[in-house]
Parts: sequence; structure tokens; C-alpha cells
Amino acid sequence: MPAATLEALRTDPNHPVAVSLHTHGVKYTQQSDGTLHSNSYVAPGQSRTYVWFAKPRNPATGSQGTAGYWWYHDHLVGGPHGTKGIASGLFGALIVRRQGDPRPDRTYVTAFGDRQTINLRRSSEADTCDEQNPVPGPTCLVARLGERVEFVAIGLGDDMHTFHLHGHSWADSRTGVVDGTNRALVDSVPVIDNKTLGPGDTFGVTVLAGDSVGPGHWMLHCHMQFHSDLGMSTMFHVLNPDGTMPPHPAAAPTGAKAASTGTGANAAPAPAAGHANHHS
Amino acid sequence: MPAATLEALRTDPNHPVAVSLHTHGVKYTQQSDGTLHSNSYVAPGQSRTYVWFAKPRNPATGSQGTAGYWWYHDHLVGGPHGTKGIASGLFGALIVRRQGDPRPDRTYVTAFGDRQTINLRRSSEADTCDEQNPVPGPTCLVARLGERVEFVAIGLGDDMHTFHLHGHSWADSRTGVVDGTNRALVDSVPVIDNKTLGPGDTFGVTVLAGDSVGPGHWMLHCHMQFHSDLGMSTMFHVLNPDGTMPPHPAAAPTGAKAASTGTGANAAPAPAAGHANHHS
Amino acid sequence: MPAATLEALRTDPNHPVAVSLHTHGVKYTQQSDGTLHSNSYVAPGQSRTYVWFAKPRNPATGSQGTAGYWWYHDHLVGGPHGTKGIASGLFGALIVRRQGDPRPDRTYVTAFGDRQTINLRRSSEADTCDEQNPVPGPTCLVARLGERVEFVAIGLGDDMHTFHLHGHSWADSRTGVVDGTNRALVDSVPVIDNKTLGPGDTFGVTVLAGDSVGPGHWMLHCHMQFHSDLGMSTMFHVLNPDGTMPPHPAAAPTGAKAASTGTGANAAPAPAAGHANHHS
Repeated sequence: MPAATLEALRTDPNHPVAVSLHTHGVKYTQQSDGTLHSNSYVAPGQSRTYVWFAKPRNPATGSQGTAGYWWYHDHLVGGPHGTKGIASGLFGALIVRRQGDPRPDRTYVTAFGDRQTINLRRSSEADTCDEQNPVPGPTCLVARLGERVEFVAIGLGDDMHTFHLHGHSWADSRTGVVDGTNRALVDSVPVIDNKTLGPGDTFGVTVLAGDSVGPGHWMLHCHMQFHSDLGMSTMFHVLNPDGTMPPHPAAAPTGAKAASTGTGANAAPAPAAGHANHHS
Repeated sequence: MPAATLEALRTDPNHPVAVSLHTHGVKYTQQSDGTLHSNSYVAPGQSRTYVWFAKPRNPATGSQGTAGYWWYHDHLVGGPHGTKGIASGLFGALIVRRQGDPRPDRTYVTAFGDRQTINLRRSSEADTCDEQNPVPGPTCLVARLGERVEFVAIGLGDDMHTFHLHGHSWADSRTGVVDGTNRALVDSVPVIDNKTLGPGDTFGVTVLAGDSVGPGHWMLHCHMQFHSDLGMSTMFHVLNPDGTMPPHPAAAPTGAKAASTGTGANAAPAPAAGHANHHS
Repeated sequence: MPAATLEALRTDPNHPVAVSLHTHGVKYTQQSDGTLHSNSYVAPGQSRTYVWFAKPRNPATGSQGTAGYWWYHDHLVGGPHGTKGIASGLFGALIVRRQGDPRPDRTYVTAFGDRQTINLRRSSEADTCDEQNPVPGPTCLVARLGERVEFVAIGLGDDMHTFHLHGHSWADSRTGVVDGTNRALVDSVPVIDNKTLGPGDTFGVTVLAGDSVGPGHWMLHCHMQFHSDLGMSTMFHVLNPDGTMPPHPAAAPTGAKAASTGTGANAAPAPAAGHANHHS
């Protein structure tokens, strides 16, 4: 199994400070640790090849392997822990899969950081989508109904956060899904829609876009109230299967009794029980 | 499977601001999201029916179903995240069970919030029990020895907390219990008595009141020391099977050697090993 | 099964305040709760025997047993939650194993506390090793390549932390390992190298020293950046199998292309795939 990712880091000759590349989860010797004490950094104008190993689980030794949702980051700028490098954006996500893992149709990275930022942005800068004609990108999270969408959540900086997504939930497992028919196993894994994320933590989940909830604009935000109020919030835009976006529901009616028109439309096969029973 | 809960929210005509009902974990369309941008809120004097769906797990699609310990809350008062609504008490717990889940004899909700509050109260207001004759209620957590008691923990507001219960522990699983005889599964799930809880997080555990520890007054508190010191602490009062409460143990004796009189009385069947071996 | 640990606490007659011993995870009656309200504390000059029970899991009742990574601490000094006692060091780790649990070659306790301390120390005081000739101890974490090393992480005080170890990862399970050949179970448990730790939380992991990464000085630190920057960081020193420590890698070369010399040396049996494939 070859290394999952190889990065060649070459610094700008005019960059005034040394930088490094430290990764989580995969394997590497001291030469690729990306730390000051191990001399595994890159001086201004130099380059360095970091070598990472992806390894399968080895039950004989107890080695757990390297599959997971990880991140890599500078460990040198601003001090021996790379605090300024990370705050400046010198980081990224790294995904190592096991054979058989679900393959997503789309992957989005959401790094929860200081100053109430998602991917170093907040408020309208965190969601730059044209709502009716969204173009997928780091600040425009979009999918068609039923697509398999993978979110990688990264915690960085000084603060705790919680990752919350409206309308969607996932198993609190390695991938967000629990396979198999073992009832005891399936029943042991919580299903959640909100997860605490500390600096350095990473996790990934795979959801079906709009599953059981339909298309629309689904908030993705930190549930620390002062964080979301200050702009730590974006949207997951779920399109119709044909790529169009339905309009926002009409404003709340002024009648005394507003009939719900929710249909529970589901991209997945409909449950055996009829929908009609749900509307009362 | 019908919706787990249906709520009809009718605002006081004199209530000056719009409110909403946003829920976690179960399914709903944009019309029942309870957010500003989806127009799914309730203007003053109006009413609205929110429709939620409980769904079973669907292994074919990877949909994880909606069973879980959830909460619902306003998402509008004080801004688009409902910060003031939540702080004012516009929230509650929602439990969706799977078939076969343990059914508790009693359920208590403990919402850990800002200003070191449990259920928006602290210190003596969080535990209003008459210790010798407690009447169960939101601020009087009480059970008889051996009863199956379910705690739902909710994190809300701006702060992190940890949920700690004296004398009791639980499996860190979907329900607090791990069923089955699969040794590898059972051995993979941690047993804990303290769990970190961020805003928006919810979890539930089922314990046997006084199991292996007997009746008495068992602290339930946030283990952040300045939180518990400021009153984020209540009691779980466990009665004798006949409903009486034993008196507090005598004050610490002044002799040089205080013999323990602990008996490890257990509401459950006694373990095979004799108790006598434990007393030395 | 006898109690895992028995502690006889005798206070210094000149100690001016009462103290107590409260433990997590194992079982005890109100007489051994170590709290003020239960009179289970120790007045100055007195002694008290606290009795704890270790219990196996009881599937018939849902009792989860007491195996786990726990801590004990004072619950009286500085108020009814022992805040000053804990801050002064009146705490320790308690491990209760199940039959068949991995037995480590070495165990190290890392308590993450206030003022950015690990085991109440920070910066150079947290790692007092002679790097080339380290003597294992509470402030010198060292092992030979391939040894099974158990870390017990304890959160205490007022702050959140994250436990991060360079070069090593573990299954987020009860012991850090997932046994068995059940693919669905193995695939449900995340592998992580960074874990959030709140006050009162404890967990333990077992890793193989230097597995797949080789000997050297591997950072162990809180990943909250301002915590690590202020000294909440130590080292896990992994020696060669013969007990020697290789020198630090040479400083980053000044040539335009630094060839990596990483070898992925592994104390465990080499994977079937040859190493050569990894070096490109």
C-alpha cells in the first residue's frame, strides 16, 4: 500500500521564516515529523520531501492502521507548535480509507477555528453561494438530492467548537455509517447531529444529501451560541435531482392555523409505511 | 412508524417577537426547520404545526435512522440562532427509541447551560428535594433502589461542561448499555462516569439506581471545578426499595481507625464472590 | 474479584483541614463517597479506610462493570468539590482491567490541568529527561521500541484540553485497541491521535512504542495552541531496542532538494508489502 499522499514543500525564497509539514494519523519517521527539535523543517528557500506511510491494521500486533480523517499543518511558524502557521492557513485535510469504505460523490472540508471562523471565514464570507445557482467550492457547499456527501471536520486554534448540521445526522463511528446486520453492534453506536470538536480533533461523516428531508438550505454551524451569532455558520445547499434549487418556502402565513406542507420527500427508497400517516 | 412527537406551537398574541421550533435528530422539511431563512417560524399571534418524522435505520442506503436522545429549541429569538430563546428556556428533550431499547422507570432531563446552571437553576435551586421525603420533579431527581433511571443530558449556550454522576457509571454507547454476548463488541465500548458535553450535544444513559452502591444522596455535577463551585451541582436521591431514605451516615468518627461499614448492597443479584472478602 | 485498590488515608495531625478520597468508576457506599454531605471525609489527625469494589459486567441487569481508566481525588479541600485539593495534587489514576485486557510493559499518567500543566508541571519541568540517557519517571516518559505503553489521560480543573501524541495513534475504544475479526465492529471504531479531554474525563490507550515510526523524541501535547505554546507539552522518548537513543536527525540540509531518509522502521513484523515501494 503506497503512501496516501506525498507532499513536496518548497518555500518561497523570499519567505522570511522556516516552515514545516506535520501530519496526523499516518506514519513517518523523525525526519518527517515536521518539528523543530527533530530538524525536520524547511529553511527559507529550501525544499524538503516529507514521506508518509499509510498502513493497514495489524491485528497480530494491535497496530490499528492509519485509515481515518486527519489533517496536516505547519508546526514551526510562530513557535514550536506552529500556532501562527496554522492561523495563517498552513493546514489541510488528509483522508485515508480502508477497502470497502463508502466513496463519496463530494467531499467538503470544514475547519472550525479561532475568531469564530469556518475555513478561516465567517458570516457571508463562509457561504458565498449564489443560492439559486450555486457553484461548489470551499465556501459553497452544495450537492444534489441523494448524493453521498462527506464532511471532514477539523478543530484548530485555541477554542472548543461543536459541529452541527441541520436536517442530517450520522452514526458516531469511523465513517459516519455503521454497516452490517449485527444488531448489538448497530445498536451500540449513537446517531448524532452535533459533535464536540477540540483543537487537533478531526472526524469525517458521510451523509446522503437531503435524505428524508428534501432539498433546501440546511444550516451548518457551531452550536456554541456566541460563535454562531458572530458568524460561525454556513449553509449546505441541497438541490433537486435535476440540479435546480426550489425557492424558499413562503413566509409564515398570517392565518391562525398554518398547515404544514412538509412531505418528507426522500431521495432514498420510500419506507414501507405511507406518508399520509405522518400528516396529522 | 408515526412521528415521535408532534408539537403545535401557538404564540401569545401579546408576545412581541417571532419564535420557532427547531429540532435535532428527527426528519423534517424546510417548512419545519424553524429557521428565519426558510420562513419556518411563527409570527406574534400566529400558530404553526411542525411536522417531524421518526425513521428506522435503512442499511441499504446508509441512512442511520432517527433513534436517539435529542433536543428541540427556538432558533429565532435574539437572532437567527435563537440564543435568547434558548437562554430563556425555550427548549426541551426528545427521545426516539428503537424497538427493544430499555424502557426506563423514570426519565430526568439535565440541561447544562450558561451561568453554571442545570435546567437553568443552580445551587439549592437545582435540588429542591425534601431529602427525607422527596417528590420527583425537574428539580428533585429521585428513584428507588434498582429502578431503571434514564438521564438525558443536553448542552446549551456558550460553554463546555462535563456530566458526572457519583456512584454510577454507564457504557459510552447509544443508550448507556451494551447488549449481547459478543465479547469483542462489549470490550470495545468504554464504561465512563463523566462525559464532555458541548452546546448542542445531547446524550442519554440508563442506569440502575444505586446499583452496587446502595441508597443515599449521589451528587450529579459538572466536573469543571469552577462550575461546580458556583452551583452547577444537584443530587440524585436513591431511596430504599420501600421508599424510605436512610439517614446520612454518621459524622466521621474521631477514633484513630474508622471501620468502614460499607456493604456494597446491590439491588441486582449479588455476584458469586462473597462480600466478606471485600472488607479488609 | 477483590477490590482493585484499597487506600488507607491518614492525615497529618498538623494538617489544618479535612480531606477526603472520592473515586470514579468503581463502587462504594455513601461511607466511601468522600463527600461532605455524606460525612465520608477525614478530619485533621484522623484516619479512614475507604472501601471500593471492582465488579464484573452483569449482562442480566445491564450493569456495565467497573473496568476502566479512572481517577481518584480529594472532594473537600477548598469547598465541597475539592477544587483546591485537586489543584494541590491530591489525585491519582486508577486502572481496573477485564480479563484478557492487554497488559502494558509501562504505564504513564498524564493529567491535563489548569495553568497549562501536565501532571502539574509545564515546559521543561514536564520533561526532565536526559535525552540520551533517560530514566523513566513521572516527568520522563520513555520506552524501548516495540514496548507496549499505556497512557492514562486525566482531565482536571477548569479547562478543556486535547491529548495529542506524535507518531502514534489508537482506536477510540475502551483500551485503545479493537480486538477480533468482526470487520463491521473493527470498521466502526475510529482510529485517532488527538482526543478532547474535559475535567473529570479519563481515558487510557495502549500503543506500541515507535510502531511504524521508529525511535526518537515524539511530542505529547495539548493541541490547544495557546496551551502548548505556554508549555503544556512533553516528550515520549522511544529508544532503540538495545536501550540507546539515536541522535537527532541532522539539521535540514541547505541543498535545493533534501532527500528523505525515512525508513518506516517498525518494531512489529513488517507488512507483506516491501518498504521500497514507499520511497519515491
